[in-house]
Amino acid sequence: MTVISLMTDFGIKDGNVGVMKGVIWGIAPHAQISDLSHMIQPQNIREAALILARSAPYFPEDSVHVVVVDPGVGTARRPMAAKIGSQFYVGPDNGTITLLLERAEDEGWQTEFVHLDKPQYWLDKISHVFHGRDIFAPAAGHLASGVSLAELGTRILDPVRLALPKPEQTGHGWRGEIIHIDHFGNLASNIRIEHLAEALKHMDKVTVTLAGEVIRGMVNTFGERQPGDLVALMGSTGNLIVSVVNGSAAERIGVKTGDPIDVSW
Amino acid sequence: MTVISLMTDFGIKDGNVGVMKGVIWGIAPHAQISDLSHMIQPQNIREAALILARSAPYFPEDSVHVVVVDPGVGTARRPMAAKIGSQFYVGPDNGTITLLLERAEDEGWQTEFVHLDKPQYWLDKISHVFHGRDIFAPAAGHLASGVSLAELGTRILDPVRLALPKPEQTGHGWRGEIIHIDHFGNLASNIRIEHLAEALKHMDKVTVTLAGEVIRGMVNTFGERQPGDLVALMGSTGNLIVSVVNGSAAERIGVKTGDPIDVSW
Amino acid sequence: MTVISLMTDFGIKDGNVGVMKGVIWGIAPHAQISDLSHMIQPQNIREAALILARSAPYFPEDSVHVVVVDPGVGTARRPMAAKIGSQFYVGPDNGTITLLLERAEDEGWQTEFVHLDKPQYWLDKISHVFHGRDIFAPAAGHLASGVSLAELGTRILDPVRLALPKPEQTGHGWRGEIIHIDHFGNLASNIRIEHLAEALKHMDKVTVTLAGEVIRGMVNTFGERQPGDLVALMGSTGNLIVSVVNGSAAERIGVKTGDPIDVSW
Repeated sequence: MTVISLMTDFGIKDGNVGVMKGVIWGIAPHAQISDLSHMIQPQNIREAALILARSAPYFPEDSVHVVVVDPGVGTARRPMAAKIGSQFYVGPDNGTITLLLERAEDEGWQTEFVHLDKPQYWLDKISHVFHGRDIFAPAAGHLASGVSLAELGTRILDPVRLALPKPEQTGHGWRGEIIHIDHFGNLASNIRIEHLAEALKHMDKVTVTLAGEVIRGMVNTFGERQPGDLVALMGSTGNLIVSVVNGSAAERIGVKTGDPIDVSW
Repeated sequence: MTVISLMTDFGIKDGNVGVMKGVIWGIAPHAQISDLSHMIQPQNIREAALILARSAPYFPEDSVHVVVVDPGVGTARRPMAAKIGSQFYVGPDNGTITLLLERAEDEGWQTEFVHLDKPQYWLDKISHVFHGRDIFAPAAGHLASGVSLAELGTRILDPVRLALPKPEQTGHGWRGEIIHIDHFGNLASNIRIEHLAEALKHMDKVTVTLAGEVIRGMVNTFGERQPGDLVALMGSTGNLIVSVVNGSAAERIGVKTGDPIDVSW
Repeated sequence: MTVISLMTDFGIKDGNVGVMKGVIWGIAPHAQISDLSHMIQPQNIREAALILARSAPYFPEDSVHVVVVDPGVGTARRPMAAKIGSQFYVGPDNGTITLLLERAEDEGWQTEFVHLDKPQYWLDKISHVFHGRDIFAPAAGHLASGVSLAELGTRILDPVRLALPKPEQTGHGWRGEIIHIDHFGNLASNIRIEHLAEALKHMDKVTVTLAGEVIRGMVNTFGERQPGDLVALMGSTGNLIVSVVNGSAAERIGVKTGDPIDVSW
């Protein structure tokens, strides 16, 4: 009973996600399908890469993650499937797996990539504009029903990678940037727990600065401060986040993804 | 393991769709349930008809499509179930299946309709305002667990049909109208691949006109033009669409459903 | 094949709900999972309590309802699991089950509560801010795979209850308040069918008043009046609601939750 996750920028009103499930269940009737997100900002591969990397570790072995954020649909960009550690990726070869690959290298996981170039594993008729339905959903279904990665396509060694911004060390800590604003208005940065090992030993001595706001001290959780207070803490996936207790930091501070954030101690 | 799709105008915040799944799984514990859309514009039967017709062909045999866009709930309109080709429809008899029936007639599929008038297949208590939960979800569950269409109700022969606008031939091509605006802002028309067989042999000679915009030449996919360009192409379900590459045609051009579009060559 | 429902205030764009499903299926691969709502207003426990109480009765026996609206995450508030009648609740001990408990007392259902204090049933690493993923999803998975309530934690007897407003009898009927505004703009009150037994025998003699609007007579369903008419009727879960036929009462009348509504006859 393979788990398949779906992430797209298709939204939820036009039926396109439902159609992908119809195609998958036509091939793999027992698959469990989890929607990861269909509200990725249109064509924002970087946002999809971030959510994929932080979500995949919580899925069972052999899960198949289908991600279709695909501005290049119908052009020369390769449709791809990959095995990264114990799980599979299916989607365009456009860098969506960049952060997951970095994790694989850190952890020593094995990786394998194929170009989905075998039409016998696609739908009979292929549109130029909806490979999610015509190529990727069938590929996920075939993986879930036991077809091997190697059967689905020709091996490749050079998947596309995004050039993602990395935090930089400063005199007194790290400078990173805001990489995601969530439904609650929490602001997540690319400064991670690995960068802050020293700082987290003395959380009251840490200062976080962004958009002119200075937050003195970090907390473990929201309940340590009063509703309405601006706080800095480690988010549930190991990134430094800035939040308003029971409120929205995004509404309070006019910040957008890409804006700088500084941590010092 | 029957696949059931759900389409409603219920939105996603009030729990009503989840309740329908609870009812279905109480009757058919193994059913796979795919949300098709719950963001149909309130009471817009025509939009539901369009999404149903283009989505159903991608579902497995014996799938059950439950569509509850039901301005007449609690009145004399009949609750209905139908077999159309190899799949089932469950919902109010209000024209939602019009386009699917036209397809069935073109393809020579068999059709059969019943009035859901057997209370033993409903929930025990029936509200006046939520037949999706009380009549349609149970009917879908019973179909998925092996009850035949004929058992669920009395045969009828005259399902309601919508009068839908058809494209008309002009001196140099076709005049149709915009029938759907999707999440990306793509504008879909009712001019279909069948109308354009001749035009598609010479795509560079085709001119598409809507709302004062003139698009010269059609493309196969977005990547043939630059981001921001306005393009005309065949959508993934065989309708002529107008798009902005990596952008929103709906935002660029002030068009609404029902507005005319012309193709000439 | 246990049914698990999920209700949160997480929204649908960040992947957090999908991750909970990944965790659940890692423990209970056969569970059927129904999204109830992820659009609960952030931190609005009362709204979650309302939707839970009216939805749960439509789910099969042994269903597990996971509700994570959790302003106190990471503080001393207890993570809890409960059996209420034939179904289970998993989530923070913050009053979300108040209305369901009132129902249980009315119906004489048995109830049992445990503090989820056994880390062997959690994920290995526990964040301070996402117990939905780290504690509640695993607990639901274990219940679905046959672990008993008593194994998951230490029995408690004093679950938190919300003080919810009750309708009050007036000289000529009842005064209650608006407790929910749904996707269609229907206004639901806390005046229930139990309060209106006498009134419903003479529906044409009932007067409903809110925000200066006076509605004379109640109807059984929308189709009894013309599109655009303001009507009062019993909603599908036994609450008095005010609606506009094929329109939005919320748009027509400037009402918010907590505003008073009067019924007299």
